[in-house]
Amino acid sequence: MFENRERTDINELGEFGLIKHLTQHVELLSEHSVKGVGDDAAVLDAKNLSTLVSTDLLMEGIHFDLTYVPLVHLGYKAVQVNLSDIYAMNGVAAQITVSIALSSRFPLEAVEEIYKGINLACKKYNIDLVGGDTTSSKQGLVISITSIGYAKPEDIAYRNGAKEHDLICVSGDLGAAYLGLQILEREKQIYLENPKIQPDLEGKDYLIERQLKPEARRDIVALLADLGIKPTAMIDVSDGLASELLHLADQSGVGVTIYEEKIPLDPMTYETARELGLDPTVCALSGGEDYELLFTISQADYAKLKHDVDVTVIGHITDKNSGAKMISKSEKVHELKAQGWNAFMTKNKDKPGT
Amino acid sequence: MFENRERTDINELGEFGLIKHLTQHVELLSEHSVKGVGDDAAVLDAKNLSTLVSTDLLMEGIHFDLTYVPLVHLGYKAVQVNLSDIYAMNGVAAQITVSIALSSRFPLEAVEEIYKGINLACKKYNIDLVGGDTTSSKQGLVISITSIGYAKPEDIAYRNGAKEHDLICVSGDLGAAYLGLQILEREKQIYLENPKIQPDLEGKDYLIERQLKPEARRDIVALLADLGIKPTAMIDVSDGLASELLHLADQSGVGVTIYEEKIPLDPMTYETARELGLDPTVCALSGGEDYELLFTISQADYAKLKHDVDVTVIGHITDKNSGAKMISKSEKVHELKAQGWNAFMTKNKDKPGT
Repeated sequence: MFENRERTDINELGEFGLIKHLTQHVELLSEHSVKGVGDDAAVLDAKNLSTLVSTDLLMEGIHFDLTYVPLVHLGYKAVQVNLSDIYAMNGVAAQITVSIALSSRFPLEAVEEIYKGINLACKKYNIDLVGGDTTSSKQGLVISITSIGYAKPEDIAYRNGAKEHDLICVSGDLGAAYLGLQILEREKQIYLENPKIQPDLEGKDYLIERQLKPEARRDIVALLADLGIKPTAMIDVSDGLASELLHLADQSGVGVTIYEEKIPLDPMTYETARELGLDPTVCALSGGEDYELLFTISQADYAKLKHDVDVTVIGHITDKNSGAKMISKSEKVHELKAQGWNAFMTKNKDKPGT
Repeated sequence: MFENRERTDINELGEFGLIKHLTQHVELLSEHSVKGVGDDAAVLDAKNLSTLVSTDLLMEGIHFDLTYVPLVHLGYKAVQVNLSDIYAMNGVAAQITVSIALSSRFPLEAVEEIYKGINLACKKYNIDLVGGDTTSSKQGLVISITSIGYAKPEDIAYRNGAKEHDLICVSGDLGAAYLGLQILEREKQIYLENPKIQPDLEGKDYLIERQLKPEARRDIVALLADLGIKPTAMIDVSDGLASELLHLADQSGVGVTIYEEKIPLDPMTYETARELGLDPTVCALSGGEDYELLFTISQADYAKLKHDVDVTVIGHITDKNSGAKMISKSEKVHELKAQGWNAFMTKNKDKPGT
């Protein structure tokens, strides 16, 4: 990486020089941002709203593999993963802080690529980069992002508000990011065995894009506001539909029943799963990294939402004793189990997630 | 480490289990904390105050050496380093988020030790732990902390408010943490050469404590409020007095003049520097990690502060063209240069800092 390109040693700039270099063009856009990079702390103004804060730590070799993840996409995705948590509270994201640690194998140009992705995401989602830290690393690349957002207290959607008979909804479609990862891993293996073979990603663009360049669903938060719907509970799908449903059920003290035939799958997800000998439903239930929003609404709100093609009702909330269930296409009852990727089980590289 | 003690594999708990295990006894104390760990994001209430946010990324092998840093101290210090940035804005810290990545050499008991230190710091400083992330690492330990605090907009002390003729003040004393590190490094070398020799830290307790267990100066923020003083500019001393003075001068567009004889040094700092053949003044100027507060006040406020033994006036603000200067004990004029530790220059292990 970067062997044949321009290569500037980060030591030439030093820590303060690097921060200045990376943030010199940052302009604060949000009305909630008073002071960004350059002092001991950023200064924010909540303007009578509640403040939402979420943080993620992304480690090279655990959460991303630089053999096939371009640095610009890594920066973009690192931001999206974090914003997704703010949207999952039914809030509007406004700021991030970014800390990056790099080992000496990364030149300045590498950091610039990561920041290009970060800045792209910030611009597209109206996010101010208000602080951070850069340091060296003995352990490869580490990215830590904290995102900050705002919401009226009464609009916040927690995980614990789902009530019996509520409808379970999910945005977009599921399982594609997981299959994108399978394709990238397959091509990596082929490349490692024979570097002359070009990667064959034809016809898989949607899956690859879902894996490398996810988009947090700010638009769904806006849609729900437009429709006058407050979700009774909400969570983002980062570890797989099953794991998130179990979180909602557990924290709300309820049961869930979903219908396999209702789970939204893109045709490319379905076909590719079949090609790879995988069950498309399992990819949706346990794959993760979809960054879609999973939420519950009261039945009274169903009419407002039923014509929206980007939201699918996949089931309903039941009483706690009914447990967490999926009714299969053949009308069999399956108990839902969390098989989402676990960041501590690194041996199982097939289970992605953050 | 932990070879002869209880050793529980973190995999047994899994990511969600670990978070639950570590945060199960967390009670929210701040009126600014609405919802802590357990949802997609923490929910905070600024209550009409400005919000202050600061973040740090601490890497094993760069910022700390586990051969002589006990994990409980590491957790405690990681929090202090972060709180110090909030106090340096003249704010009150209220919350932190903590993300930790660990390689498989760390058992559950190691994480518990780190959290013991984190919780101790939180309890002592009235801080709520409201969120975070735990993940595995291919190598070593990574700690990322974001701290959140509050202040009235008009009370915030930026780095850019120092005016000509203002007095330059510093809390506590300087250089001790740097010398503590020198002692610890010396004993580490002796130990590596002959593991049978016990470390000789006698009479160096203050220096070791300043290095391993610094205390952020919340009390100075409270003192200034009590005295009715708003600093015209403020910064915390993490990279050494010289580096911080240059930041204040640069951002305020002014010059600084300090007097060597006024720089507060503990007698133990002075004696140990001499013992080790180091210049005590250089230890204060360039050592770093003191986490004292460096601030400027208008001369009109001097009378309110002059009897406080924990704050020393070390110089005054001059016009920009006069530059950044120190008048030595022999009345020579030295130009101040930033020689604070640079996180990218890891070869120079003698320069500590975060």
